[in-house]
Amino acid sequence: MFDSANLPHVMTKDEFEAAESRLRELLLDAQFEVAEQKRAAIMVMINGSDGAGKGEIVNRLYDWLDDHLVETLSYGKPTDAERARPGAWRYWRDVPAKGRIALVLGSWHHRLLRNRALGRLDKNAYNNALEEMIRAEEMLRHEGVHLLKIWLHMDDHEVRKRLEKLREADGALRRPAVIEWDEIQGSKARARLIDAALEMIEKTSTGNAPWAVVPATNPHYRDVAVGDLLLQTLKSAAAGAPAAPSTRAVAAPDSALPRPSLVSTLDLTKTAGEDYSKVLQSLQQRLTEATTAKSFRDKGLVLVFEGNDAAGKGGAIRRVREALDPRRFRVYGVSAPTDEEQARPYLWRFWRNIPRRGDIAIFDRSWYGRVLVERVEGLAAPQDWMRAYQEINDFERQLGATGYLVVKFWLAISQDEQLRRFQDRETKAFKRYKLTPDDWRNREKWALYEQAMTDMVDRTSARQAPWALVEANDKKFARLKVLRTIVERLEA
Amino acid sequence: MFDSANLPHVMTKDEFEAAESRLRELLLDAQFEVAEQKRAAIMVMINGSDGAGKGEIVNRLYDWLDDHLVETLSYGKPTDAERARPGAWRYWRDVPAKGRIALVLGSWHHRLLRNRALGRLDKNAYNNALEEMIRAEEMLRHEGVHLLKIWLHMDDHEVRKRLEKLREADGALRRPAVIEWDEIQGSKARARLIDAALEMIEKTSTGNAPWAVVPATNPHYRDVAVGDLLLQTLKSAAAGAPAAPSTRAVAAPDSALPRPSLVSTLDLTKTAGEDYSKVLQSLQQRLTEATTAKSFRDKGLVLVFEGNDAAGKGGAIRRVREALDPRRFRVYGVSAPTDEEQARPYLWRFWRNIPRRGDIAIFDRSWYGRVLVERVEGLAAPQDWMRAYQEINDFERQLGATGYLVVKFWLAISQDEQLRRFQDRETKAFKRYKLTPDDWRNREKWALYEQAMTDMVDRTSARQAPWALVEANDKKFARLKVLRTIVERLEA
Repeated sequence: MFDSANLPHVMTKDEFEAAESRLRELLLDAQFEVAEQKRAAIMVMINGSDGAGKGEIVNRLYDWLDDHLVETLSYGKPTDAERARPGAWRYWRDVPAKGRIALVLGSWHHRLLRNRALGRLDKNAYNNALEEMIRAEEMLRHEGVHLLKIWLHMDDHEVRKRLEKLREADGALRRPAVIEWDEIQGSKARARLIDAALEMIEKTSTGNAPWAVVPATNPHYRDVAVGDLLLQTLKSAAAGAPAAPSTRAVAAPDSALPRPSLVSTLDLTKTAGEDYSKVLQSLQQRLTEATTAKSFRDKGLVLVFEGNDAAGKGGAIRRVREALDPRRFRVYGVSAPTDEEQARPYLWRFWRNIPRRGDIAIFDRSWYGRVLVERVEGLAAPQDWMRAYQEINDFERQLGATGYLVVKFWLAISQDEQLRRFQDRETKAFKRYKLTPDDWRNREKWALYEQAMTDMVDRTSARQAPWALVEANDKKFARLKVLRTIVERLEA
Repeated sequence: MFDSANLPHVMTKDEFEAAESRLRELLLDAQFEVAEQKRAAIMVMINGSDGAGKGEIVNRLYDWLDDHLVETLSYGKPTDAERARPGAWRYWRDVPAKGRIALVLGSWHHRLLRNRALGRLDKNAYNNALEEMIRAEEMLRHEGVHLLKIWLHMDDHEVRKRLEKLREADGALRRPAVIEWDEIQGSKARARLIDAALEMIEKTSTGNAPWAVVPATNPHYRDVAVGDLLLQTLKSAAAGAPAAPSTRAVAAPDSALPRPSLVSTLDLTKTAGEDYSKVLQSLQQRLTEATTAKSFRDKGLVLVFEGNDAAGKGGAIRRVREALDPRRFRVYGVSAPTDEEQARPYLWRFWRNIPRRGDIAIFDRSWYGRVLVERVEGLAAPQDWMRAYQEINDFERQLGATGYLVVKFWLAISQDEQLRRFQDRETKAFKRYKLTPDDWRNREKWALYEQAMTDMVDRTSARQAPWALVEANDKKFARLKVLRTIVERLEA
């Protein structure tokens, strides 16, 4: 779920200063409006890796805001008074009054993750607690409390480096810092923590109250990103937008900040080697073996192909298909829904085509149309495509829980390569049917699709069904990568 | 949760025929409108006790509706094709098209309850499945599928009688009937079933998708009640009301049918015996012992007093208070919220006053104001007080889970008795401060309060915190019943 947060996010000092002077003024204006109206309270939940700058963010926000109307809520070990009461009591006691902003460190999210990491909650108990938390947050939003949930993300290697720098030889800290995850050291506890955090982010990555995952490696970028998110929250509160889920049209961070796209990180020049045919044959052989093995009978395989127009989905699917028992698979080409389909919930057309266990369904485009073409073309309202992330995660989790393997591909080509292929299609009669006016129109929205694809991978690369991004300027390379990915997932 | 459904609900043949001819016409009109618009699909989930008439209801609805636009979906043992796919597949496959009505027997609710009763799901797994179900239903509603969830209720004794009548000596059925719970026989399985059903109804008794619990003992009443609910659903669908939760203002069955009030069943003439003082003293003694015992230190006690104006809450509280260690309790009189309270979510003022474990909080009026005075006086919007039932259940469940005992009283007096007490207060100087113009105004809304109280008890008499209804025309009787209830709950 952190795919795009792992990309380099840079901001120079000059850029920062320009952004800062703009942000300060806007933040103050918005803050005063919220304060005067006394209609909404804001809680900024600051969570994330140690060393990612949780404390620095709080200090920065105090600088930028009017500090009389801001309060810090920080929760560590429960006090005696807190231990003597239900766990939620201490958070309830501190709920900020309408008109005010609370900066929250060590929120209930932290406590829950910590208890899971330390093994105090088993998987089911954790899940139950998570659902209770979701309901409680929903209630707060209904009551006019806007929750801005921030996860400062830094990769583990960088975290270690920072923490080392912070510590003296005797383990003491060189300067004040918010250290929350100190206790979680053993590899088992770390694994549980990461798993629990992913689950939390998956389950709450809805249109209602998504986490904003903020890349924290570059402090300039980090601070401006958080300021920007807060500004949006304040503005939406001031505009009287209810904090309640359904009426909040766009909960996605729609920031003015540059957001690197996931595709931009792919090396599209990769090519298949000389031995393409040999490797292809060997991978197909392995695929045949894996899908005809006795153990496969209790499984199902669901393959999803998405990608740019003309990225070579059809060709890749053909190479997969060739290796499969023709009685056991079916390819579904997904285009505009039929009348029958239009009359039902959007997942219906996919549910009805879920294969028996032991069989294989190949989707050439899929349910992800909801958050790609329907989003970009405005065919689905923002609140509808935003809730789809969670609905899709639920759907794929159900498949995973009953033995299905879901493998999802994004085939990426460059704009130049696409143009070449379009022109090729125009000139070759037998390929002309493949090119439609829609394809040219979509091309003009390249950047919008790239953004939609980045969000999609961020929010749906769930543990049971991660996305595979496939460099596809070289068709042969793409085919081999697709086959290899399927074979390796099946063999794992 | 079945409190009011257990009351006698009668409807004569003549009343039925009048209601039927009115309903048929309205139902057909509404059905055709929904069919023409093709904007919403309706699923009527018919669940409940065996012998309560699930099959009869389906036949009746076919009579009343245009049967070309209705379909029955019935789920029993999974077929081979269904077993080979995820559990939800068979329901998905059958989702009705927009414009159509599906009558559903053996829905996913039934399967879930059955698996729990048979011990195939442990408590936590059941809870998780329940939450997944809630999310799935929310999605359906967002997608324009209106769910009308009906629970036909009949008490166990009556169920047995009916089933006996239905069966031949050899166990075969005399005529077709929907028998779904045959397998659940052992007392352990029955107990798990009842517990699971209560949990399901508690967790989903929200403003969003409440169960409609329909008393099924009288078939006339039952059929008209279901027809009435379907009519409302169709009308709201036809009026373009989104099936999505938040925008559906009132999800409570607001039927034209007479609904007996819970208070009407109380025998208000009950009086305390001659030995009032002796019994009082002995109960107070037991209360002192129970609340000063060592074992009480890990518990907390939360007492809630609601009731008609002038029902004697103060006097009852005094008799409780006298038996308590003055260092360990506090009485909270709840009136209009302060500025501080108004600025925060409505539960905040109660959360902040939750006592330490080992202490006692007495609430003279409480969070239930949300669904009583705020509902009746229009101080809270329907969608807000409707969601409060679930929020309150969640709140009390949290208290229960951390060792608190929540005991809730409704003190009921008759209208005549109230008038006598009001007049008494007007004439006695030292009591005059107790009577306000509000009291007279509330009195005019007697029927509305009675309805609000019935709904409240139905929806919040959760297992961990049932309501005790107290006949209070005789103050002494009421005081003894209050004390006895607390003592018995503490000693249990």
